[in-house]
Amino acid sequence: MQVYADNAATTAVSKTALDAMLPMLTDCYGNPSSLHTVGQKAAEKLSAARETFAKYLNAQPAEITFTSGGSEADNQAIVSAGAIGEQKGKKHIISTAFEHHAVLHTLKKMEKRGFEVTLLPPPENGVITVEQVKEAIRPDTCLVTIMFANNEIGTIQPIAEIGALCKEKNILFHTDAVQAAGHLHIDVQAMHIDMLSISAHKFHGPKGVGVLYARKGIFLTNVIEGGSQERGKRAGTENMPGICGAAAAFADACEHMDENAAHMISLRDKLLTGLAQIPHSIINGDLKQRLPGNVNLCFEGIEGESMLLLLDEKGIAASSGSACTSGSLEPSHVLLSIGRPHEVAHGSLRLSLSEYNTEKEIDYILAVMPEIVNYLREMSPVWDELEHGQRKHQI
Amino acid sequence: MQVYADNAATTAVSKTALDAMLPMLTDCYGNPSSLHTVGQKAAEKLSAARETFAKYLNAQPAEITFTSGGSEADNQAIVSAGAIGEQKGKKHIISTAFEHHAVLHTLKKMEKRGFEVTLLPPPENGVITVEQVKEAIRPDTCLVTIMFANNEIGTIQPIAEIGALCKEKNILFHTDAVQAAGHLHIDVQAMHIDMLSISAHKFHGPKGVGVLYARKGIFLTNVIEGGSQERGKRAGTENMPGICGAAAAFADACEHMDENAAHMISLRDKLLTGLAQIPHSIINGDLKQRLPGNVNLCFEGIEGESMLLLLDEKGIAASSGSACTSGSLEPSHVLLSIGRPHEVAHGSLRLSLSEYNTEKEIDYILAVMPEIVNYLREMSPVWDELEHGQRKHQI
Repeated sequence: MQVYADNAATTAVSKTALDAMLPMLTDCYGNPSSLHTVGQKAAEKLSAARETFAKYLNAQPAEITFTSGGSEADNQAIVSAGAIGEQKGKKHIISTAFEHHAVLHTLKKMEKRGFEVTLLPPPENGVITVEQVKEAIRPDTCLVTIMFANNEIGTIQPIAEIGALCKEKNILFHTDAVQAAGHLHIDVQAMHIDMLSISAHKFHGPKGVGVLYARKGIFLTNVIEGGSQERGKRAGTENMPGICGAAAAFADACEHMDENAAHMISLRDKLLTGLAQIPHSIINGDLKQRLPGNVNLCFEGIEGESMLLLLDEKGIAASSGSACTSGSLEPSHVLLSIGRPHEVAHGSLRLSLSEYNTEKEIDYILAVMPEIVNYLREMSPVWDELEHGQRKHQI
Repeated sequence: MQVYADNAATTAVSKTALDAMLPMLTDCYGNPSSLHTVGQKAAEKLSAARETFAKYLNAQPAEITFTSGGSEADNQAIVSAGAIGEQKGKKHIISTAFEHHAVLHTLKKMEKRGFEVTLLPPPENGVITVEQVKEAIRPDTCLVTIMFANNEIGTIQPIAEIGALCKEKNILFHTDAVQAAGHLHIDVQAMHIDMLSISAHKFHGPKGVGVLYARKGIFLTNVIEGGSQERGKRAGTENMPGICGAAAAFADACEHMDENAAHMISLRDKLLTGLAQIPHSIINGDLKQRLPGNVNLCFEGIEGESMLLLLDEKGIAASSGSACTSGSLEPSHVLLSIGRPHEVAHGSLRLSLSEYNTEKEIDYILAVMPEIVNYLREMSPVWDELEHGQRKHQI
């Protein structure tokens, strides 16, 4: 059996998305900046895609900028907010310790430019509280950037409350919604979100397309300089096939959000409950404030990478954390941030589901996992000590 | 008859490119950073694409970084060279006045960061001389960035000679090869090119994919911060369908370069010669040092945009200059740079051909152009004066 359970890393492109892309890869190949009919046909598709994103975010089309992905959108949001803050002499940014590296590394860059950054430590359940944000706010705070949902442990942050607080305090609020968009309801008005980043390949759209929503009046700093595409805020000929595929996938995901979520939540909870029965396993992240498709546990005494290889041999595609940092020997900064010790964080497993997953697949994962865990623990010197210690304790 | 003659703006995606993209939009959807088989299959495709670009540029795979387009590649090359120069106390950059805005606007940004920029004025034939570069070099010059071929008038620059000079003077040499790649032979070793930018959609690849070649040892500065993709130099999940399509299109273009060029040159020269017979027309750019598909003329007494609209009504897609600046009321900075007066530059027409164009299409363009020019001149008050003046002169 083949089970793809790494949908937080990337998703299969849906037929809906592909069908929207194909005309742009064949007949409708014009450059939307061109004045002739061939170009203007592409320009109409670009406008329609912009309207789609605006509609489902409750934004205006002019507030939508297409980028090459979620990372670029995160970069541009932070750099722009920093430039606006700097003009007012405000150079303090609030974020969290478990953001994606697209945010954390950009914040490092801002520190080099003289900004001060406060990274809030998430509580053990992985849900930042609005009180934490409130306490961190200073007179010189120019930006709060907090992810909508964590990419590893799936915890959903109180975005509407943080948004309301930032609005009250007149501070720009950006959220990296890469894991949330297409999976959770987003209303930038109701939630008082000033800037928001999206990546299409997390909801069955194509790779290479992102969206930066920025509220009207926010002056964007270019990350990429050049032509006057995207109102001069993002140079480079638009990735038309990708943008059209992204819009189709987003509309599809938003229209079927509730039914997809119900399906995923039922699979997720079965999987979480089942895996939690493996001895010395620890669920990571809040059980309720959680993405519909996210399962994340640590298995003590195990090296996560070995677990992934054995799962792969059984046809199951999973991950230990973010794909963007795979290959790194360091344990997940997300798991460390919620207080998992190094040796426990090393034994992490993320299974991320989409609406394409089935109950049979969940049963299959639940059937093979205990033997994999046992096998690895038998070979593990760490486990020997751990089990021995535990037994002594229990006797 | 429908004639697409705006291939410098963008090209139709070839069947070869589309065939390489489709598997990545269906079965092979993995994230190449993922450790499992689904991800590693994508990683193999990524490696193969990198090898393809390396092979046809005479570079090493590790010297190839995939970006979201030519603009991003230009931005990253210049910012990186600037950072390297700054470390050595060298903050002078040499470029030309007729570069693409992806270069010119990035140079503006560098000026704000304290760099001095010398923009060489191209001679009337649009071919920068190596002597001009030589004279501009200073002890603090850290970068020479000169386009391989101009995007509007198609003139090819003496890249190998400039490369040899820069190597001799130990100055980094970058070339924006967006219009040249896939159309002209490029050998980064023989031409002593340190950095080079490519855009896939200019040679029948998809939009949204670029390549930055950077010689081994050149430390790239991130334009997009985040995950560790592209050896940590370009964050964001790779645009796998786009990258695979780009590589297939590049291989195809390089393998058939000479025959494609011969076909295009024959069409180009027929078109140039024919259009030049329209009275008061001026060919822009050198006739020999010229891209195989580039035709560019000015018609005195005419507004370029009106010409484009009438051509479009006849089914001919053309442009007055760069698509990236269309909508601007300013005349082309390229045409001004080679000495065309404002009023002449306003009447410019670029017809850019690909190997898909046919002789019948050229005949059709040649048949409709004189009547369009005449019609517009009849309505033009400028032309009245001009013709009157000319007649007086001739009598």
